[in-house]
Amino acid sequence: MYAVGVSDHIMIAHSLQGETFGPAQRLHGATYEVRVEIAAPALDADNIVVDIGLLRTALRETLAPLEYQNLDELPLLAGANTTTEFLCQWIHTALVKRLGARLDARLSVTLVESPNAWARYAAPLA
Amino acid sequence: MYAVGVSDHIMIAHSLQGETFGPAQRLHGATYEVRVEIAAPALDADNIVVDIGLLRTALRETLAPLEYQNLDELPLLAGANTTTEFLCQWIHTALVKRLGARLDARLSVTLVESPNAWARYAAPLA
Amino acid sequence: MYAVGVSDHIMIAHSLQGETFGPAQRLHGATYEVRVEIAAPALDADNIVVDIGLLRTALRETLAPLEYQNLDELPLLAGANTTTEFLCQWIHTALVKRLGARLDARLSVTLVESPNAWARYAAPLA
Amino acid sequence: MYAVGVSDHIMIAHSLQGETFGPAQRLHGATYEVRVEIAAPALDADNIVVDIGLLRTALRETLAPLEYQNLDELPLLAGANTTTEFLCQWIHTALVKRLGARLDARLSVTLVESPNAWARYAAPLA
Amino acid sequence: MYAVGVSDHIMIAHSLQGETFGPAQRLHGATYEVRVEIAAPALDADNIVVDIGLLRTALRETLAPLEYQNLDELPLLAGANTTTEFLCQWIHTALVKRLGARLDARLSVTLVESPNAWARYAAPLA
Amino acid sequence: MYAVGVSDHIMIAHSLQGETFGPAQRLHGATYEVRVEIAAPALDADNIVVDIGLLRTALRETLAPLEYQNLDELPLLAGANTTTEFLCQWIHTALVKRLGARLDARLSVTLVESPNAWARYAAPLA
Repeated sequence: MYAVGVSDHIMIAHSLQGETFGPAQRLHGATYEVRVEIAAPALDADNIVVDIGLLRTALRETLAPLEYQNLDELPLLAGANTTTEFLCQWIHTALVKRLGARLDARLSVTLVESPNAWARYAAPLA
Repeated sequence: MYAVGVSDHIMIAHSLQGETFGPAQRLHGATYEVRVEIAAPALDADNIVVDIGLLRTALRETLAPLEYQNLDELPLLAGANTTTEFLCQWIHTALVKRLGARLDARLSVTLVESPNAWARYAAPLA
Repeated sequence: MYAVGVSDHIMIAHSLQGETFGPAQRLHGATYEVRVEIAAPALDADNIVVDIGLLRTALRETLAPLEYQNLDELPLLAGANTTTEFLCQWIHTALVKRLGARLDARLSVTLVESPNAWARYAAPLA
Repeated sequence: MYAVGVSDHIMIAHSLQGETFGPAQRLHGATYEVRVEIAAPALDADNIVVDIGLLRTALRETLAPLEYQNLDELPLLAGANTTTEFLCQWIHTALVKRLGARLDARLSVTLVESPNAWARYAAPLA
Repeated sequence: MYAVGVSDHIMIAHSLQGETFGPAQRLHGATYEVRVEIAAPALDADNIVVDIGLLRTALRETLAPLEYQNLDELPLLAGANTTTEFLCQWIHTALVKRLGARLDARLSVTLVESPNAWARYAAPLA
Repeated sequence: MYAVGVSDHIMIAHSLQGETFGPAQRLHGATYEVRVEIAAPALDADNIVVDIGLLRTALRETLAPLEYQNLDELPLLAGANTTTEFLCQWIHTALVKRLGARLDARLSVTLVESPNAWARYAAPLA
């Protein structure tokens, strides 16, 4: 198994819905370091999993609509409870659309929300 | 697959038994950064894997009896050769007791013992 | 010169006022890792600059009113343009009040706002 | 599953062949942080996956022939397009030779090439 | 004293001249994480030391001519022994040209060349 | 001002004397990441502050007598209350002996004891 990963970050505001979230029900915010990794069973003719420049660009374009936004008022996310887990999956889905499906590959998206907490979503790149 | 992780740390003294350990057979110590991650196939109604506050508290309570202790003299660990691998598993078992079993979830415990060494134990949350 | 430092973090929402800030004029947010350091010319009878537990508690209590808040609506910060530099200084002032003045010591407050940007305010602990 | 990991680093020059690589086709260089991890289903009589001193030494010896070299002119790598993915696998193969095969264990080699990019190769320790 | 900092990175090849450098006399390379910080005694009307977007752009433009280059053959650095210390100062000088002199401010440039080595040059922003 | 820094680490046991230290009065331990930096006003003929290999070796030799030790029973430190601040100064003194005095240079020694606490001692390299 080969893998390639790149990271970027976004700064957003949001609030979480549900008593479970305690003070995080208030409007607050986060810097998310976004780490994405593509794993595949073989390398291509260039000895790579994926063109890292292409992956970096796809990630930046995927994150752009979230950057410096209040997620509570973003039409793109209307009605969603934007937990870190949810955002991992939302970015995963958006990245697959940009990169195109690859049935043999797996895409993992990790959001680091603070020096001691993070979430991840991993599923086939499809 | 979704996952959520949190980290904390402890500072302990101990010695390791067996020639394999060379100078680490002497009484010495470590700061362990403890990183725990729960992975599950689906989110609950709140769009989370687990309540992160609950996970953080469970981890703190699990680590408390080890904090600022000499593990060689801790009744809780009597007779154990407290390698980093062993401590990962001990914390795993103690965390499962606090969190309760979840047959569909997997718990991973990583201890980072220095800027260039770490160990991990991962098994079902059960 | 001796120094002791501790770190903590907060997650907040805010917006910045002024064309200079471009898209950061929109309501967004940040995780700030807050690193504070006290420097002094000599150690006390306990061989320390300051009781690290006391410093950690003072920092936590100083940050508590900002935690999970929208700074734009926080009476405590009414009228302020809450840039990272400003927040460093605000925390500095609040920490001095909690710790008490020490004419020979210097307090530095650093806020890391993303993997590649930070700000700092340093001045006498007075 | 138990795992143990250690890290080291090398500083090398190389160029990449193929239009995909854009400016990285020019002779340039990298500091690679090399993180290796061995995972196994059980601990040995010493409560460890592998002697960490032995693993550290094997990694150092494996990296030594690459250290401070221009990979484009290294006979050891003649004809190879030395992408980060390729180097992960090359180090994996060389480490297995030093450590000896262990059918029940898995070896993962990660190269971190910059603050926001990395690659990995993971396969049985055999 | 207020300060603002941003970081970026470059990947270069070079060799060092002089017996002091041992194996680093061979053509090798490095990923340099470049951390720059501007310190000033007061904030401007926007509550900032410097426009962080402007600083980030100035740093990127300063680093661009070094990116993916073999410094031994770069006319810009002809005749120089490109130690990490030297590169810190070279980047400092180039950044001052882009940012313009500010007599009250100080600019510090740190290059992190590996997980355990770095160099810095700090001088007035002039 | 130019500076060069290197880091290493040690794993030790110790206890702290005095009610101030609360639970840290018990025998416990720490992994200390040790970061040392030499600052000087000018570079030598090789464009460096100090030979980094020489600095690394001097640091390793300075730390060796502390490595895997219980500081409470180390004759070298007899009678000392081995706080992090004290250890910074002790390492500073020992490093100056190995490196030799340089009247124009300043040596800073930082010990990172956990992900959120550190201490430092800085004084002339003399």
